[in-house]
Amino acid sequence: MAAADKAENLSLVVHGPGDIRLENYPIPEPGPNEVLLKMHSVGICGSDVHYWQHGRIGDFVVKKPMVLGHEAAGTVVKLGSSVKHLKPGDRVAIEPGYPRETDEFCKIGRYNLTPSIFFCATPPDDGNLCRFYKHNADFCYKLPDGVTFEEGALIEPLSVGIYACRRGGISLGNKVLVCGAGPIGLVSLLVAKAMGAAQVVVTDLSAPRLSKAKEVGADFILQIAKESPKEVASKVEELLGCKPDVTIECTGVESSVQTGIYATASGGTLVIVGMGSEMISIPLVHAAAREVDIKGVFRYCNTWPMAISMLASKTMNVKPLVTHRFPLEKAVEAFETSKKGVGLKVMIKCDPNDQNP
Amino acid sequence: MAAADKAENLSLVVHGPGDIRLENYPIPEPGPNEVLLKMHSVGICGSDVHYWQHGRIGDFVVKKPMVLGHEAAGTVVKLGSSVKHLKPGDRVAIEPGYPRETDEFCKIGRYNLTPSIFFCATPPDDGNLCRFYKHNADFCYKLPDGVTFEEGALIEPLSVGIYACRRGGISLGNKVLVCGAGPIGLVSLLVAKAMGAAQVVVTDLSAPRLSKAKEVGADFILQIAKESPKEVASKVEELLGCKPDVTIECTGVESSVQTGIYATASGGTLVIVGMGSEMISIPLVHAAAREVDIKGVFRYCNTWPMAISMLASKTMNVKPLVTHRFPLEKAVEAFETSKKGVGLKVMIKCDPNDQNP
Amino acid sequence: MAAADKAENLSLVVHGPGDIRLENYPIPEPGPNEVLLKMHSVGICGSDVHYWQHGRIGDFVVKKPMVLGHEAAGTVVKLGSSVKHLKPGDRVAIEPGYPRETDEFCKIGRYNLTPSIFFCATPPDDGNLCRFYKHNADFCYKLPDGVTFEEGALIEPLSVGIYACRRGGISLGNKVLVCGAGPIGLVSLLVAKAMGAAQVVVTDLSAPRLSKAKEVGADFILQIAKESPKEVASKVEELLGCKPDVTIECTGVESSVQTGIYATASGGTLVIVGMGSEMISIPLVHAAAREVDIKGVFRYCNTWPMAISMLASKTMNVKPLVTHRFPLEKAVEAFETSKKGVGLKVMIKCDPNDQNP
Amino acid sequence: MAAADKAENLSLVVHGPGDIRLENYPIPEPGPNEVLLKMHSVGICGSDVHYWQHGRIGDFVVKKPMVLGHEAAGTVVKLGSSVKHLKPGDRVAIEPGYPRETDEFCKIGRYNLTPSIFFCATPPDDGNLCRFYKHNADFCYKLPDGVTFEEGALIEPLSVGIYACRRGGISLGNKVLVCGAGPIGLVSLLVAKAMGAAQVVVTDLSAPRLSKAKEVGADFILQIAKESPKEVASKVEELLGCKPDVTIECTGVESSVQTGIYATASGGTLVIVGMGSEMISIPLVHAAAREVDIKGVFRYCNTWPMAISMLASKTMNVKPLVTHRFPLEKAVEAFETSKKGVGLKVMIKCDPNDQNP
Repeated sequence: MAAADKAENLSLVVHGPGDIRLENYPIPEPGPNEVLLKMHSVGICGSDVHYWQHGRIGDFVVKKPMVLGHEAAGTVVKLGSSVKHLKPGDRVAIEPGYPRETDEFCKIGRYNLTPSIFFCATPPDDGNLCRFYKHNADFCYKLPDGVTFEEGALIEPLSVGIYACRRGGISLGNKVLVCGAGPIGLVSLLVAKAMGAAQVVVTDLSAPRLSKAKEVGADFILQIAKESPKEVASKVEELLGCKPDVTIECTGVESSVQTGIYATASGGTLVIVGMGSEMISIPLVHAAAREVDIKGVFRYCNTWPMAISMLASKTMNVKPLVTHRFPLEKAVEAFETSKKGVGLKVMIKCDPNDQNP
Repeated sequence: MAAADKAENLSLVVHGPGDIRLENYPIPEPGPNEVLLKMHSVGICGSDVHYWQHGRIGDFVVKKPMVLGHEAAGTVVKLGSSVKHLKPGDRVAIEPGYPRETDEFCKIGRYNLTPSIFFCATPPDDGNLCRFYKHNADFCYKLPDGVTFEEGALIEPLSVGIYACRRGGISLGNKVLVCGAGPIGLVSLLVAKAMGAAQVVVTDLSAPRLSKAKEVGADFILQIAKESPKEVASKVEELLGCKPDVTIECTGVESSVQTGIYATASGGTLVIVGMGSEMISIPLVHAAAREVDIKGVFRYCNTWPMAISMLASKTMNVKPLVTHRFPLEKAVEAFETSKKGVGLKVMIKCDPNDQNP
Repeated sequence: MAAADKAENLSLVVHGPGDIRLENYPIPEPGPNEVLLKMHSVGICGSDVHYWQHGRIGDFVVKKPMVLGHEAAGTVVKLGSSVKHLKPGDRVAIEPGYPRETDEFCKIGRYNLTPSIFFCATPPDDGNLCRFYKHNADFCYKLPDGVTFEEGALIEPLSVGIYACRRGGISLGNKVLVCGAGPIGLVSLLVAKAMGAAQVVVTDLSAPRLSKAKEVGADFILQIAKESPKEVASKVEELLGCKPDVTIECTGVESSVQTGIYATASGGTLVIVGMGSEMISIPLVHAAAREVDIKGVFRYCNTWPMAISMLASKTMNVKPLVTHRFPLEKAVEAFETSKKGVGLKVMIKCDPNDQNP
Repeated sequence: MAAADKAENLSLVVHGPGDIRLENYPIPEPGPNEVLLKMHSVGICGSDVHYWQHGRIGDFVVKKPMVLGHEAAGTVVKLGSSVKHLKPGDRVAIEPGYPRETDEFCKIGRYNLTPSIFFCATPPDDGNLCRFYKHNADFCYKLPDGVTFEEGALIEPLSVGIYACRRGGISLGNKVLVCGAGPIGLVSLLVAKAMGAAQVVVTDLSAPRLSKAKEVGADFILQIAKESPKEVASKVEELLGCKPDVTIECTGVESSVQTGIYATASGGTLVIVGMGSEMISIPLVHAAAREVDIKGVFRYCNTWPMAISMLASKTMNVKPLVTHRFPLEKAVEAFETSKKGVGLKVMIKCDPNDQNP
């Protein structure tokens, strides 16, 4: 690190709607419980693109320049004074959200709900799409030798699927409906199968997305056109031979939430992952009288260690999710690619000396 | 029973909208797994009044004459051939719904969800507002000496409260919001306190109902006028000093469901007990992003034994819920009283020789 | 069935210790809620062999001749008068235990705990190692086309594994220890992996059994010789890199239970599947102070439907468990083979016209 | 605080077996996330007496002088630089254990299991039986006006009861057995009733302890003399009319653990609170085959906020537990009293200017 100077920390910064720039930031100094990381691989998430395009997501507004990126893995290069469980050279995956205070949500193990949480690339907190980044050491997880940096970076989207499936209580032999075949739908599919789901139906408007779903393991795919929610529910039941025990709704679209209610088996669970309009119209009485529980997810918690176990044991293969790679210097081009919606996951390679997966 | 003849089984029968009649029915003969009961006390439920007024509730339509009544207790007078756990003379509370088949819902302990369930006074199944009634013996529960017939009959509405609070996961020290101060709201309040809730707020439009809530144990009451759901949520938070962990929504009104979403603490549960319109508009994203689970209840299951334990141990006092009593011969007058909404629970006394509680 | 006469129902009957005989029994007549089955495949379980060798298991004593067999599948040939969900010709797997009464254990979904349960080949209830057998229709489950009779019969031992893993709360990414590599240990291993366990260690005294465990998917095997329980625990931790989240103890041996306590991670669960001596010595304080929960399993409940889903979706392969097959006429020879402990599962083929898997 | 000097921090210090001394310690300076507290009331726990008498508890050995005391409440007098949720003058209850690191146990909400936990008066960590004490601010909980300091101090033993009952899954209408009528048995009784237990039996060897149990709410008391565990179990069943759903074992005695196994209903839970010998003999198969889960508790977690809610709402009355009070200057006399076992809880008053409850 001796030679590191300010000019070396190239970072992708959003300044406002439509305005992202590669800029040189100072290399940060880790605090006592932090580590400094040399970034290796950072995936582009839909939210990154959204901040770039709109300068905000709901109430979160980019008011000052913010570094993007929160699906990331890198190498420890410097330890804060009180860090004991890591050492320089350790390859780590980064959990982008960590609690700033030990409030009651943290104490009961639901730290994702703590209101003052730090979260990479959510205003005003900087992300890690840069050369050097410091992070709370307790939320950096050592990667075993057999797990690549890119797999480490993919733990972030994978965590959404793990958490959604866990909240849905997916268990051995379950039939599952996943609404939406984007990256989150696909990881939900992968996780549902890994948890023992017997059959998974994936729905989407787009045929190419559905092909990808089929490719990574969907038992059935269903392309939606103009069917009503009740009609879609009915087709899902036909495919599975029964209603699904759990539905993972990843689109946020009103009609899809309605489908989820009609489709899910009595006593089952509808997990709301996609976030849509503030106010939507749903047949709540239809869910209530059949005891279909409706549970939302806010990001995730307690997923990194189990994801690493899964990846280390080769039980789950997330590598096919990466379809494009760009060096950090071409980050703007990478964002353009991601915005076009071709492929699945665009990965940015931050280490000029190591562009491997 | 020797002298019993057809003429002796006076029954309250609904023939269609606005048409209830006291008629003589034959005394039924119990099947192998049934018992014949001499009815003692039967409470009038809002659904009984609704069938009388409208001849239907949703998809359940009175197509042929149906005996009303499902909140009931009586005395065993005859056993089916294979009944072992009861004997003539046993005083019992009747669980009005029992599964007709042992399907998967039954096997996992959620028999209330089995589609072919028998349920007293839900078309086409007859209820027990009559002199003599036969029922599945496994769903008749012996009352201990210290528990009255009327307490036995009140186990039915109490069960709605028990099941709602159980689904809500109410636990020691919880803050609870109950929307609606009708009979179901009140039993939910009683049960929430019995389960260890530290403070309960009850809301309603009606001041007299709220007074009753205060009387039976509400820590706070809040009369709703023209406040928006967010305003009500905010007042609830002020009263409790924090958002409630659990909300039990007993009105079915759209604005009240919205209030439940805004009011409930992150990570908490909103239980939908009241059934309203087919389609309602709710801020689902507000629930999902704060992980407020939305759970409905369809009647109840597995509540009678624990309710009897509670009543036997005098931990819970439901007696104040009974405000009016009528002999079976005056059942029509009883229904008129119930319809007016004065008082809380109208109890019909079916045994001409014993009109005690 | 017209031509069926008494002589056609060849059955394997245990008369007392060391005394099993092939005898002709009358073909039973199904009651209203029963079906008559033409048996196809019946696996031999250790308990069958034990009744043959000792005439008893604990308090269950063979006091009158009893047909053996409870791991079974067959074809419906006759319906009781009230059976609706099955029809002649349906191929079904048989759940050998069903409740005789609808008591509170049944109502809450834990029907395996009901004291008066019927259970095939547990005195005094006859089993199904015969040509024709009648059973409660609600506990016969239709097999889809792609699932063989033998897979159907294997659902019984598989259910022990499913139920044990479910009671252990195995979830995605867990590390698991399975003590014992007999049939129950192996199905526990298969199920643990299917539920998402990242790594499973299997221990046993026998090297050949451990080879089989490795073959069907164990990540690590550990042959026990004279190590103390603490030493075994320590070796397990070395293999996994951490203590297992869940231990499934399938041997019933005191030292292995002790190992389970020392080995399991704080906050984890030790599932007791193997049943050993009445009184054993364990370091309970070591479990209690680290909050290792100790949970037993009594057979299983609610496993057949999910097992069928798993087998139908080809997510789990149990076929390699069958190592020997004998026609019913050679059942005694089959029992001799099973007793020798060579191979894993001995399957008896009861249909003279169809000896396929 | 300006006038505070070293001489003012009188502290009760254990130096080794049989050796406790009142000594002046320096007033500590709070770190960034700590608060300095002026102590008010500190209860004497059995473990404090044990360290005094034996200089150790199991592997925890007093190797250097250690301040005793961990059931405590006081007033904030100084804030660390980053403390926001408290202010000087706040009256607080102290949770004596807090995690030093954010490891996986903390992240999942089971921080009591984190190996490096700080815990007051467990070697080598100092307790708070002194005038001034500093503590992690996140584990100091503001007491509402209506809750006294002594109630605040009693939250510590109460927490053991709350956590044990929560781990036991006590719910509305349950029958409960509490083994042992010491302070922990009594708080378990209080909590069980507050959670809705219908009836609680308390057992003990001592008649006076049992009288106290009766006084604070036991439905039944049972004095044990020379009965075998099976005989005690049988008497408990007679008293309740059925086996208890949950047993809370607070003695640690082998025969009492055995009783717990025989006594608890099938499908129920035995909670191990009392810690006894390293190795004990139990009828494990009797628990396993009836699915009586055995769960230990290590102290507690997540109990202070709910305890404060309960005390603030006056739902639970712990005040009768305090039977003796001594000023800090007479702490040695207080310990002598506690050692004698007369009364229940001995409270030490640390503030010379306020000796009120």
